Amino acid sequence: MEEKDINTSKDSQQLAVDDEHTYVVPAICGQGEDQEFAHPADMADHLENLSLEKQVCALRHMPTEDAADALAELDEYVAVDVLENMDADVAAQIIAEMSPDDAADVLDELDEDHRNVLLDKLEREDSEELRTLLNFDPESAAGIMNTEIILLQEDMTVDGAILYIRKEMESDYECPYYAYVVDECEILVGVLSLRNLLLARPGEHVGDLLPKPHNVVSVPFDMDQGEVAKLLSHYNYMAMPVVDHQGHLMGIVTYDDIMDIMHEEASADMLGMVGADPDESVDTPWLESVRKRLPWLLVNMVNSALSASVVYMFEGSIAQMAILAVLMPMVANQAGNTGQQALAVMIRQLANDRFDNKKSWIAVLREAKIGFITGAAMALVAFVGAWLFTSNMLVGAVMGGALLCDMLLGAVAGGSIPLIFKAMGRDPAQASSIFLTTITDGAGFFIFLGLATSILAL
Amino acid sequence: MEEKDINTSKDSQQLAVDDEHTYVVPAICGQGEDQEFAHPADMADHLENLSLEKQVCALRHMPTEDAADALAELDEYVAVDVLENMDADVAAQIIAEMSPDDAADVLDELDEDHRNVLLDKLEREDSEELRTLLNFDPESAAGIMNTEIILLQEDMTVDGAILYIRKEMESDYECPYYAYVVDECEILVGVLSLRNLLLARPGEHVGDLLPKPHNVVSVPFDMDQGEVAKLLSHYNYMAMPVVDHQGHLMGIVTYDDIMDIMHEEASADMLGMVGADPDESVDTPWLESVRKRLPWLLVNMVNSALSASVVYMFEGSIAQMAILAVLMPMVANQAGNTGQQALAVMIRQLANDRFDNKKSWIAVLREAKIGFITGAAMALVAFVGAWLFTSNMLVGAVMGGALLCDMLLGAVAGGSIPLIFKAMGRDPAQASSIFLTTITDGAGFFIFLGLATSILAL
Repeated sequence: MEEKDINTSKDSQQLAVDDEHTYVVPAICGQGEDQEFAHPADMADHLENLSLEKQVCALRHMPTEDAADALAELDEYVAVDVLENMDADVAAQIIAEMSPDDAADVLDELDEDHRNVLLDKLEREDSEELRTLLNFDPESAAGIMNTEIILLQEDMTVDGAILYIRKEMESDYECPYYAYVVDECEILVGVLSLRNLLLARPGEHVGDLLPKPHNVVSVPFDMDQGEVAKLLSHYNYMAMPVVDHQGHLMGIVTYDDIMDIMHEEASADMLGMVGADPDESVDTPWLESVRKRLPWLLVNMVNSALSASVVYMFEGSIAQMAILAVLMPMVANQAGNTGQQALAVMIRQLANDRFDNKKSWIAVLREAKIGFITGAAMALVAFVGAWLFTSNMLVGAVMGGALLCDMLLGAVAGGSIPLIFKAMGRDPAQASSIFLTTITDGAGFFIFLGLATSILAL
Repeated sequence: MEEKDINTSKDSQQLAVDDEHTYVVPAICGQGEDQEFAHPADMADHLENLSLEKQVCALRHMPTEDAADALAELDEYVAVDVLENMDADVAAQIIAEMSPDDAADVLDELDEDHRNVLLDKLEREDSEELRTLLNFDPESAAGIMNTEIILLQEDMTVDGAILYIRKEMESDYECPYYAYVVDECEILVGVLSLRNLLLARPGEHVGDLLPKPHNVVSVPFDMDQGEVAKLLSHYNYMAMPVVDHQGHLMGIVTYDDIMDIMHEEASADMLGMVGADPDESVDTPWLESVRKRLPWLLVNMVNSALSASVVYMFEGSIAQMAILAVLMPMVANQAGNTGQQALAVMIRQLANDRFDNKKSWIAVLREAKIGFITGAAMALVAFVGAWLFTSNMLVGAVMGGALLCDMLLGAVAGGSIPLIFKAMGRDPAQASSIFLTTITDGAGFFIFLGLATSILAL
């Protein structure tokens, strides 16, 4: 995107969601002059381009609240570096200002010693809350939930509830999305938007605004974050309540965290498919990437050795007719591409929708039909091409036949691999492309060289 | 996801965002008995599993408002079928109840005649608004914006503004995310959340709540929807104002539309990479998929014929030493996988972040380093493997050397292709995998067979 495309500030931007204050990077850290930013996300972008020393300096000279906002938006590698190089007392003050879900995310990346030092410097209540959050799987609903929520009792009046919310908003930082209604046992019984409350009669009881019987969409605390993201975007909610197995409200997952997770999950699928680490980005230290990619490259090598062993079986045929070695990779390549198209459609299907076994296998059938028709079309082209090129109609027939079979196989394999992986309890995307290529290469070589050996009587 | 994982209703679910009414599929359409749904998204899921006839019947017997909500959530192919098979008067009534952005999305998919028939049946004001929306690029900010917004004037008092918002909320359906403040020329000068208003002193003027100088983050109406999504998720806004080139407020893009776009864009990247249609899903009619995929399969065929022609140059070497045909695909495969890892990282980088030319080329350098080290490691394995297998150290050396060169090339090509496509004004992902494979195959075959021919003196 060109910078000119965004309509932003001449001097400073207005913050729409939070308060209207401006975030300032102090000049003291070698900036020349104070630099103003309207939004912590922009502030974080700016900090990421500074040296570690200046990052630490800037954060400790900012108001603690601003530093907390900026830290929450920093890339995790940067945030960890900064916290480890900062005076522990200052770091703890910043952590204390962060919202508990963001604080837990950052602390989760620190090594245990450092984490404990910082936690011990917090007030007992804060550190206990953070330790609880840190015990949850960081990729579960509980691992991403925000615990700062406004709870209403069923027997509050509407005007009492509005007064209470207003008081909570004054002391707390964020504007609430919804107010959550619990019964006397703290079981979640309903969700009210500000609109519900503002439009109700003042004397009415909060409980009377809820539909009967009491029922509300929520997610269990141990649900995978990707599933939470699917549900929240399915229902277009701003926040999804998280409950324990007894239905007690534990916190909420908000749409902004879900957007980050949607980015993460989309990256994880695309990277995982080709055997890179699902969390990798251009900011990952490169040696870390080497370490994570090497095992899959080794798997790929073993797999391609398997396909090569198929070729080795037909070494004699190739020695007699070297043109086979020219045409052979084309079959494998074409089937590989067909399979990858099916693979991509299926991985996205699993990413977007709730899993439906029947619908998924109908989708494989759909891929088979597409593979058969595109395979037939390509086979015709290849038949004519190889015939003209070698002046041997039989070579053309071998090429066309092998292509049709291998493309059909590629389509079915590409469609099925994610479903098989899922049924095995594996990530449907991880290394799927590597296994697909093994199948389309191995089978392509076998069918092509096998047909050639028998039809051409080599 | 297992269905049991979601905590939902026994009888009906509560709607948190909108009103608390329940959506009912009437029994009259052969359902046996009335079926209740709490949310239009669930209702739409249910409708998608019915026959076209029952879909039409159910929608026309539902309250118009419910039908409008459900239609907005239906898959576009289904929505078009339903509208084309429904009495035009009923269809127009449902369209009139939809929010203008959803209505425009559906109408955009209809053929022109049908669209005009429906538009002519609407009230003049509504049809004019929809015609205006339909003139915008459906993938631009204006194409996805909602035009039902609450506008405040700078000189309103805070309590006047709250009364006004409350009145607007009663007549309108949705809860506003923010109120937008405009000056006397309708130029957008600020954004206020409900929180800003509820916490302000009642007599204060709305204009005084805004930071000075007036500046606000907004996007121009012609910005691509993917860029709007990046900005909204960067700032964690619930809604982003859309303005014309003079700064007049035209509408807002809300977080729920952005979530859909994030799904679309992630799918578009993964599908586009392998040459499938960016909009394809398992719901795309399969012949449509054949039509969209065939051109890229043809491109892939031509490209793989180019790589094959490289092999053809060395036909004589292969005839002398058929083992080369066995090892050759391994080099190409390994380099292809390395390149795809780089490709995936780079495409996700372009999808997640604002484009930064310098940072992007540093990322290519990073891939080159990763490619060199992983290439060296794999080359060592391949050298030893090929040596032992052929009992010929020179074959091992050829294999190792070719692998290192081709993997390095694959990494650099995978990292660069999206950037080059972007610089050419193309989609960075589209067919990138196909072009990458051409490079890694062609170069791999050339380097391997070339080295073999000269070193082994064939």
